[in-house]
Amino acid sequence: MSIPATSRPRIAFLLGDPSGVGPEMGVRLLQDPAVREAADLLLIADPAALAAGQRIAAATLPTVRIDAPGAADVPAGSIAWWAYDSLKGAEPVLGESNDASGACAMRSLELATEAVRRGAVDGIVFTPFNKHSLRLGGLQHEDELRYMQERMDVAGFVCEFNITGSLWTSRVTSHVPLREVADLIDAATIRDAVHIIDAALRRAGIARPRIAVSGLNPHAGDGGSIGDEEIEIIAPAVQSLRDEGLDASGPYSPDTVFIAARRGDFDAVVSMYHDQGQIAMKLLGFESGVTLHGGLPVPVATPASGSAFDIAGRGVARIEGLKAAYQLCVRMAAAGMSR
Amino acid sequence: MSIPATSRPRIAFLLGDPSGVGPEMGVRLLQDPAVREAADLLLIADPAALAAGQRIAAATLPTVRIDAPGAADVPAGSIAWWAYDSLKGAEPVLGESNDASGACAMRSLELATEAVRRGAVDGIVFTPFNKHSLRLGGLQHEDELRYMQERMDVAGFVCEFNITGSLWTSRVTSHVPLREVADLIDAATIRDAVHIIDAALRRAGIARPRIAVSGLNPHAGDGGSIGDEEIEIIAPAVQSLRDEGLDASGPYSPDTVFIAARRGDFDAVVSMYHDQGQIAMKLLGFESGVTLHGGLPVPVATPASGSAFDIAGRGVARIEGLKAAYQLCVRMAAAGMSR
Repeated sequence: MSIPATSRPRIAFLLGDPSGVGPEMGVRLLQDPAVREAADLLLIADPAALAAGQRIAAATLPTVRIDAPGAADVPAGSIAWWAYDSLKGAEPVLGESNDASGACAMRSLELATEAVRRGAVDGIVFTPFNKHSLRLGGLQHEDELRYMQERMDVAGFVCEFNITGSLWTSRVTSHVPLREVADLIDAATIRDAVHIIDAALRRAGIARPRIAVSGLNPHAGDGGSIGDEEIEIIAPAVQSLRDEGLDASGPYSPDTVFIAARRGDFDAVVSMYHDQGQIAMKLLGFESGVTLHGGLPVPVATPASGSAFDIAGRGVARIEGLKAAYQLCVRMAAAGMSR
Repeated sequence: MSIPATSRPRIAFLLGDPSGVGPEMGVRLLQDPAVREAADLLLIADPAALAAGQRIAAATLPTVRIDAPGAADVPAGSIAWWAYDSLKGAEPVLGESNDASGACAMRSLELATEAVRRGAVDGIVFTPFNKHSLRLGGLQHEDELRYMQERMDVAGFVCEFNITGSLWTSRVTSHVPLREVADLIDAATIRDAVHIIDAALRRAGIARPRIAVSGLNPHAGDGGSIGDEEIEIIAPAVQSLRDEGLDASGPYSPDTVFIAARRGDFDAVVSMYHDQGQIAMKLLGFESGVTLHGGLPVPVATPASGSAFDIAGRGVARIEGLKAAYQLCVRMAAAGMSR
């Protein structure tokens, strides 16, 4: 990583669900001195979860316990560790959702958003949470993105980006029945989705992001013969974005836009519904990619892979996605500092 | 190919649109003696189109002109050529749709279906047609499949299969607006779609085809929280097919079923709408795959690639898809003969 020390961003690092592969993945990533060098790390972790991760990964991180973010100077190469006691010293039960691990995970999210509220960190990286565990642990919101949105006092549009290699995607509608999709497509939401991914890509270092907007219907409506949303809604929305100077284009046929994106024609594809983007991204290897939460005041990145209860404790979970999430977060956080 | 001479099927072979890459592709395939050996070929071609194809491919096929299918014995290794005069000796104009080429293409389809009506062939292979040219040439039906359906007096369900490598797909709905898809999904159509692809796969040599049925909604409805078509319609349809002894399963999450299919878990995926299947198949390389017309009395196969006007006349069009279409048609036609 090529981040000069003077602009080293402050990154909160969470260990995910203690019953999954999160703690071991986190330790395996952070044992690399080059990784630690890229940021001023604030590890937010329960002692028992960290101990389990270190035991599984067979590594000990150079941590320095602190009482609060920024409460003490930490030597170069070491990690400031903001410890909290949720598991009460009990070894996490591996391989299943449970109340204790859920509460431990929720507490780390609460402290991370607290650190953002205090202006103490420039970005957040977390290893995989488990949605069911988070609910058991007290999550009342639709998901962790909405929880963070409220905790960070964000009123506007937020959404998740999926990133694999250099290709970013987002979607105008998400977890809704297919029969409701067409009625949820409107120009304002398309414009919001394009604006937010454009801003994030610029912060990630792309000077003028090339953003493809997908159609809704087969062959993008084929000139109006298979649906008119492309003509009535999507094309005018794209034109208005172009008029503002964005490099948006489309609507493209949904079954070929990802072929063009794969060969490098675009930096991002904004799709109209969940499976339009997810069928393509999963085939393109998104499981080892990155999920970025967009629309928050700081970048929040996590690997696309899950808590992987089936292999928890074995130290074999792949960390490519976590490493990519960390590098992206560091880059975006550094860019945010210089603004 | 391992087709014994005694069960060698009779295959009608058409040259596609004379303005595209069809004639040159056909000549390049059929110049291979091993290809000719696999079937008793009935080439249905206009002399000017065939001459242009031979000139571009720099090859001369060993043809024997006949007056009608089966009208004369043809020596082993030679091709029976049922000539018809549509272009009136004029060289086809390459690289664009036009009336003359459209009429020439339509006439070849008419004669091929005539050969089927007379019981003179066991299958049809054609190189790429161009839909716009076919319309200029007089096609009144929705597409060539519906034209063949009428000419072959088929009253039941017909549909197109897309095949790449060993993976087959079909879909319950096709060229309809996305907002209409959910209302078009019913158990009878799902059952028809699974039955027809099961029968075709058996004819292609798969003893007990493993057929995955996709869900309609994100995460296949996630237990009813994102749409109820999986619970109300798709799961019962799959169960009824299993009760009949078919190896059908699902409904699967649309964004992971093709991952499983790619690694070989299934022989076919039946999807609910156009882009659900086509986004995946195009990423998996379907452009070099095969389109098979299902539900007709004989197999009709063609490469998935198009008339490729931009490269017509250069002899560079890839013929892998055509070769795969031919081999599949020969195999299925031979199986049909033995029933």
